[in-house]
Amino acid sequence: MYDIIIKKRNEGSLSKEEVEFFVDSFTKGEIPDYQAAAFLMAAFIRGMDHKETLFLTQAMRGTGENLDLSSISGPKVDKHSTGGVGDGTSLILAPLIASFGVVVPMISGRGLAHTGGTLDKLEAIPNFRVGLTKEEFFSQLKKIGVAMIGQTEKIAPADKKIYALRDVTATVDSIPLITASILSKKLAEGCDGLVLDVKTGDGAFMQEKKNAVKLAKTMVEIGKRSNKKMVALVTNMAQPLGAKIGNALEISQAIEILQGKESQGTKDIIELVDFLGGWMLFLAGVAKNHKEGKEKVSLARKNGQGFAKFKEMVSLQGGDPKVCEDPSSILPQPKKTKEILSPWKGRVYSLNARLVGTASLLLGAGRNKQEDSIDPSAGIFLHKKIGDSVEKGEALAEFYYNSDNNLDAATKTFFAGIKISKLKPKPFKLVYEVIR
Amino acid sequence: MYDIIIKKRNEGSLSKEEVEFFVDSFTKGEIPDYQAAAFLMAAFIRGMDHKETLFLTQAMRGTGENLDLSSISGPKVDKHSTGGVGDGTSLILAPLIASFGVVVPMISGRGLAHTGGTLDKLEAIPNFRVGLTKEEFFSQLKKIGVAMIGQTEKIAPADKKIYALRDVTATVDSIPLITASILSKKLAEGCDGLVLDVKTGDGAFMQEKKNAVKLAKTMVEIGKRSNKKMVALVTNMAQPLGAKIGNALEISQAIEILQGKESQGTKDIIELVDFLGGWMLFLAGVAKNHKEGKEKVSLARKNGQGFAKFKEMVSLQGGDPKVCEDPSSILPQPKKTKEILSPWKGRVYSLNARLVGTASLLLGAGRNKQEDSIDPSAGIFLHKKIGDSVEKGEALAEFYYNSDNNLDAATKTFFAGIKISKLKPKPFKLVYEVIR
Repeated sequence: MYDIIIKKRNEGSLSKEEVEFFVDSFTKGEIPDYQAAAFLMAAFIRGMDHKETLFLTQAMRGTGENLDLSSISGPKVDKHSTGGVGDGTSLILAPLIASFGVVVPMISGRGLAHTGGTLDKLEAIPNFRVGLTKEEFFSQLKKIGVAMIGQTEKIAPADKKIYALRDVTATVDSIPLITASILSKKLAEGCDGLVLDVKTGDGAFMQEKKNAVKLAKTMVEIGKRSNKKMVALVTNMAQPLGAKIGNALEISQAIEILQGKESQGTKDIIELVDFLGGWMLFLAGVAKNHKEGKEKVSLARKNGQGFAKFKEMVSLQGGDPKVCEDPSSILPQPKKTKEILSPWKGRVYSLNARLVGTASLLLGAGRNKQEDSIDPSAGIFLHKKIGDSVEKGEALAEFYYNSDNNLDAATKTFFAGIKISKLKPKPFKLVYEVIR
Repeated sequence: MYDIIIKKRNEGSLSKEEVEFFVDSFTKGEIPDYQAAAFLMAAFIRGMDHKETLFLTQAMRGTGENLDLSSISGPKVDKHSTGGVGDGTSLILAPLIASFGVVVPMISGRGLAHTGGTLDKLEAIPNFRVGLTKEEFFSQLKKIGVAMIGQTEKIAPADKKIYALRDVTATVDSIPLITASILSKKLAEGCDGLVLDVKTGDGAFMQEKKNAVKLAKTMVEIGKRSNKKMVALVTNMAQPLGAKIGNALEISQAIEILQGKESQGTKDIIELVDFLGGWMLFLAGVAKNHKEGKEKVSLARKNGQGFAKFKEMVSLQGGDPKVCEDPSSILPQPKKTKEILSPWKGRVYSLNARLVGTASLLLGAGRNKQEDSIDPSAGIFLHKKIGDSVEKGEALAEFYYNSDNNLDAATKTFFAGIKISKLKPKPFKLVYEVIR
C-alpha cells in the first residue's frame, strides 16, 4: 500500500492490480484508515486518468454482487441523478418507462442536507416497502417491469467504506472518485443502458457547470468502457424543480403529473421527465431517436399508461393503491400550513435551490445527518417560480410543517433565497448539455 | 479539522491558530489518524510556505518542554546532521567545541537503515549512559560543558506522533515537514546557535542536491525567525565519511582523531570536523570568523584539549575512561574479521555510501526497524576510498562481524557499491554550500 500511495502522490498512473489491491484490501479491513486517507488525498489532488477510474470502478463493483437480470426479458435501463431539490423525476419516470415494456430496476438513495431522496419520498406512502428481498425484486420486475428499492449491502460494499472515509477527509469532491462511487453501484445493477442527470447550479453538489460537464463526460466514458449504453445530461439546479418540495408533497405532485395534469410550477419537471425519458426509451431501443422517445413519454404521461404502472408498483410494494385516487386521504398531512406572502410587487428574479431546500429541511422534510429521521408531511409548496409576476401580499409559497420550532429560521432562509425584482430575469435554461 | 484539510488541499496558507489546532489536537489524540493522514498528504503535495512552516515548528515545539539553559553560563551551540554513513563527527565535535568553554548540550538519535546514529555509537562504550535525567544533564553541562544524550519523551512529543504517521503514509520526504520535525526538537534544546549538516548524495536522505539546498535554506530561515543563530552546510554523502563504519569502529576512529592522528581514509571526516567546528565556534562568538574557528578546532584536535574533554565526558556518563587509552581492550570486538580483496587493479572510481552502509547493516552494525537490536562490534573498515589506487588482490576493506549469516549478502552489496576503474575519478567535493 505504501508503494501505491507513493506512486499516486508522485502523479503516477496506477495499474489494474494496484487499484484492485487498494480496494480489496481496504474493504477487507487489511489497510488502515490512515493509509487509505493518505491515498485518497493523493488521488484527490493528483487526479486519476480514465484508465485508473475504470479500474477503480470495476474493482469497487467487484467487491460485491452483480445482479444478473438475464432471466428477465426485455431491455433494461435505469436513470440516476446526482441529487437536487424537488427532483421527483424518478418517481414519475420509472413507471412511465416501464409502461413501454422496458425493465426499470431502480435502486435509489435517501436525501441529505438540502437535497431529497427517492426512497424517503416513496416511504411517505404508508407501508410502501423499499427493502424488497432480491427474490421479491426479481419477481416484481418479471411481473410488471418496474421496482424501486434501496441500496443493498451486497452491492459494491467498497463504496460505503470508501465514501465514509472520503466524507471525513475532504476528499468527496473529486471527479474520478465520484464517478467510481456512482458507477460501481449502477453498473452492478445489470442494466443495458443508463441515463445520468448531472445537476449543476446552487442546489447541486457540483455547483460549477464546468465541473458538472467534466463529471458527466467521465461517467459516460467509464460507462461505455464497461459496455453500457450511456447518456448524461447536465441540467440546471439553480432553482428547485417543480412546485412541490418535500416527501409526501412530491408523491402527490408525481401522481398529478402521471395523471396528465400540468399544474402551475410543474413545467420544468415535466420538461425534464420527457427529456430524460426520451433518452431512456432511445437507449432501450423503443424509440429510434430522442425526439420520438420524448413524444412517446409525453403521450404515456397524458394517456394514463404510466399512471397505471405506478398503481401496480405501489400495490405490489405494499402501499395503499388508494393513494393514486385520493392522495390526501392516504399521504401524511401536516398539522400546520402557512402562506408566505410577498412583501413586494415584481417578478421572481431568482429562487435559490440550496436555500429553498434548506428551508424545507428546517421545516422537517430533510436530514442533516444520515441517521436523522424526517417528517414525511413537511415541505414547501411553491406558488411562484423564476419569471413569475407577484403582487404585494400574494403568496409566494406555502409551508407544510408540524412544529413551530424552526419556522422562523425556515422563513428567513426562504427569503434569503428569493429575489423579487422589477427586472425581468433571463429565460431559465433547464438542459445545458447532452453527453453521449 | 475538516476545514483545515480542505484549506491545505485547496492550496491555502494556514494561520497560526489552524496549525496549532492540528498539532495540539492530534498530539492529544483528539484528531483521528485518517484525518491527520489526509492533512499530511495535502501538506506534502501542496507544500507549506515559510510562515506555515514556522507555525508548525513552533506548535510542535510547544507540545513539550523547552530546556532553559540560562542557569548555565557560556554560549550554547549544537550541531545536527540529517544522517549519513560513517558520520561520527558529533562524537568528535562535541568535546572539541566544549573544550573552548562553549556549552554543547547535544541531543542525538539512533541509526536506521544504512545510516548510523550517535547514541548507538556511544553505547558501544560499555556502561556509557545516554539516558541521563534532566538534573544529571544540567549538572554535567555546568561541570564540563558537554553532555551527549538521547531524545527525551518530553521534548516535542508531537514530532514522535506525527513522524510515526508520516512514516506509513508516504509523507516523510517533504521539506516543511522535515524542517518542523528537526527544528521543533533542536529549538527546544535552548541553544543560541545551531550548525546543520544537510547531507546529499546516494547515502543521504535527500539524495538530490537541489532538494538538500532547499531544505538547508528553509531550516536556516525558520531557525532565524525563531531567534537562533543558524548556519547550514550542504555536504556530500556520495561515499562514506572516514575509514570506519560501525559503532565501536567509529568510537575508536573518533578517539584516534581526538588524539590528533590523521590515518588513511580519515581526511574527509577531519576536514568536515574542522569545517563544522569552525562554524560552531563562530556562532558561539569564540572565533571572529569561520577561518579562525577552523584553525582553533584544528589546533584543539591536535593538542589534545578536545581529547581531554572527551575523557571527562565518558567518565561522567558512566563509561570506562580506559577506552581512551586502549580502545580495543574496552570496546566490543567481533569474533571474526575478513579482508575484502580487490579482483581488479585500478582506482576506486566510486564507493556508494548507501550500499556500503547497507553492507555494514547486514554485518550487524545497523537496524532495519527501530526496534531491532544492533551488534556494536560489527562494521566495515575501509582501506580504500574514492581516488585511491588498488592492486589486484589488495584489501579494499575489512569486514567485522560475529555471524556468517549475511556475510555473502554483505559482500555482494559491498561490491555492488564499489567501482574500480582505469579512469581517474573527478576530485571529491565535500562541502557544496554554506547557507547562513
